Amino acid sequence: MSRDQSPRGGRLAIVGLGPGGPGWRTAEASALLAGASDLVGYGTYLDMVEDQPAGQVRHRSDNREEGERAAAALDLAAQGRAVALVSSGDPGVFAMAAAVMEQLDRPDRPAAWEAVEVVVSPGVSAAQAAAARVGAPLGHDFAVISLSDNLKPWAVVESRLAAAAGADFVLALYNPVSRHRPWQLGHALAVIGHHRSPGTPVVVARDVGRPAEQVAVVALGDLAPEAVDMRTILVVGSSTTTRVRVPGFKEPGVYTPRRYPGGPSGLRE
Amino acid sequence: MSRDQSPRGGRLAIVGLGPGGPGWRTAEASALLAGASDLVGYGTYLDMVEDQPAGQVRHRSDNREEGERAAAALDLAAQGRAVALVSSGDPGVFAMAAAVMEQLDRPDRPAAWEAVEVVVSPGVSAAQAAAARVGAPLGHDFAVISLSDNLKPWAVVESRLAAAAGADFVLALYNPVSRHRPWQLGHALAVIGHHRSPGTPVVVARDVGRPAEQVAVVALGDLAPEAVDMRTILVVGSSTTTRVRVPGFKEPGVYTPRRYPGGPSGLRE
Repeated sequence: MSRDQSPRGGRLAIVGLGPGGPGWRTAEASALLAGASDLVGYGTYLDMVEDQPAGQVRHRSDNREEGERAAAALDLAAQGRAVALVSSGDPGVFAMAAAVMEQLDRPDRPAAWEAVEVVVSPGVSAAQAAAARVGAPLGHDFAVISLSDNLKPWAVVESRLAAAAGADFVLALYNPVSRHRPWQLGHALAVIGHHRSPGTPVVVARDVGRPAEQVAVVALGDLAPEAVDMRTILVVGSSTTTRVRVPGFKEPGVYTPRRYPGGPSGLRE
Repeated sequence: MSRDQSPRGGRLAIVGLGPGGPGWRTAEASALLAGASDLVGYGTYLDMVEDQPAGQVRHRSDNREEGERAAAALDLAAQGRAVALVSSGDPGVFAMAAAVMEQLDRPDRPAAWEAVEVVVSPGVSAAQAAAARVGAPLGHDFAVISLSDNLKPWAVVESRLAAAAGADFVLALYNPVSRHRPWQLGHALAVIGHHRSPGTPVVVARDVGRPAEQVAVVALGDLAPEAVDMRTILVVGSSTTTRVRVPGFKEPGVYTPRRYPGGPSGLRE
């Protein structure tokens, strides 16, 4: 996985920072950040990269216009720069990797981009970090769903929630609310509530891995949508997800057993 | 995220190695491995940890009996050792974190385990690594499903596949086959085939991040179950997942757009 730090035609590395500081960052991501001539990203994410080598240029953007940001990063790389386009978590999960691919899929894709070497460097996602803090809620089949209806119809969100909850998946919910999407989480919890008991454990994780981290486990029936903001992700248990007392944890943990009711005794692998 | 390297009562760190070598490993995982007095794990995973500090003891097990392995690791930690129980990928995804939680949830849990400090250290999962190699197939809602019916009824696997495929999730399929589960993948593909066109891109990823890595994108209709083994994971596209030519990639890439048909134009966040 070694990368040439200064390819001839320029490079665009789409880099996952992991959920917070450098502890949950991969060695490859750290090397790509250190070797970049230019970092491009949402300002909050750029601030998560502590070390800035001499001469490295940082291009800060706001959290909208991901398409424009992706195109700008490709343009920079086409000029021969070694660009790192940063995402929090995993760039492949509701983040910048798809935004770059969308630009590359444009019918009017600039010829200058052909010389760029594109690489995607994965990272630990926020849902995985939240899960680690409380035990193993993602230990069995799970679905990862963005509640944002900015780019998909809300009916699709609801139908996916109903299908996944009905089939008893654990649910990892990204982008639960935003300033412009105030009511969606309440509707989502109503859909889920048709398939889950009010006592189902829900992991409410805000700023996981950052100094302001807050992780709590609450019962589905007690979850107040107004207590959730856009920096929070939720992990809603399946019917088998259960609390467990874990030595060394301040709060009770949560896990989803590998065994499912009615299953064989295992040990055939 | 700093960890005391030698806690008084012993420590059990459940550590994700990431998908392959040290490049995709987090700094926290590497520090926990270096600071451990004892590594416990499946032999193949222990071999992925190159550096062995002087005095570190390695306890190799085979790939079965995860419960016994978890209990043995807790016993070692209860003796005051700094134990790292290793998983490939993320220990929270179909791996050892749930196995440890199951042991901690036993009614006859040994009193000696109370003094242990348990921590879970997340890692990049195999599905994320496979996705990074080809672009961004997990860029939109996805479901992660183990096809193993060792511990859950096959009917549950099929109902989850049908629900997730029917709701147009991208599907990441773990444990697609094993020596004792030869027919399950064919049945799974038949279920998925009711909801997807034969041209749907499928990422077939074997040993991602390891020297023998093989990653290919094939059409769903061309996927031969007998070409898949237990070291392979599959990512089956949704109806919107599409191929894209990526500069620097040897083979065509694959991504799932963030936009879904019928959705608004976005940019409200």
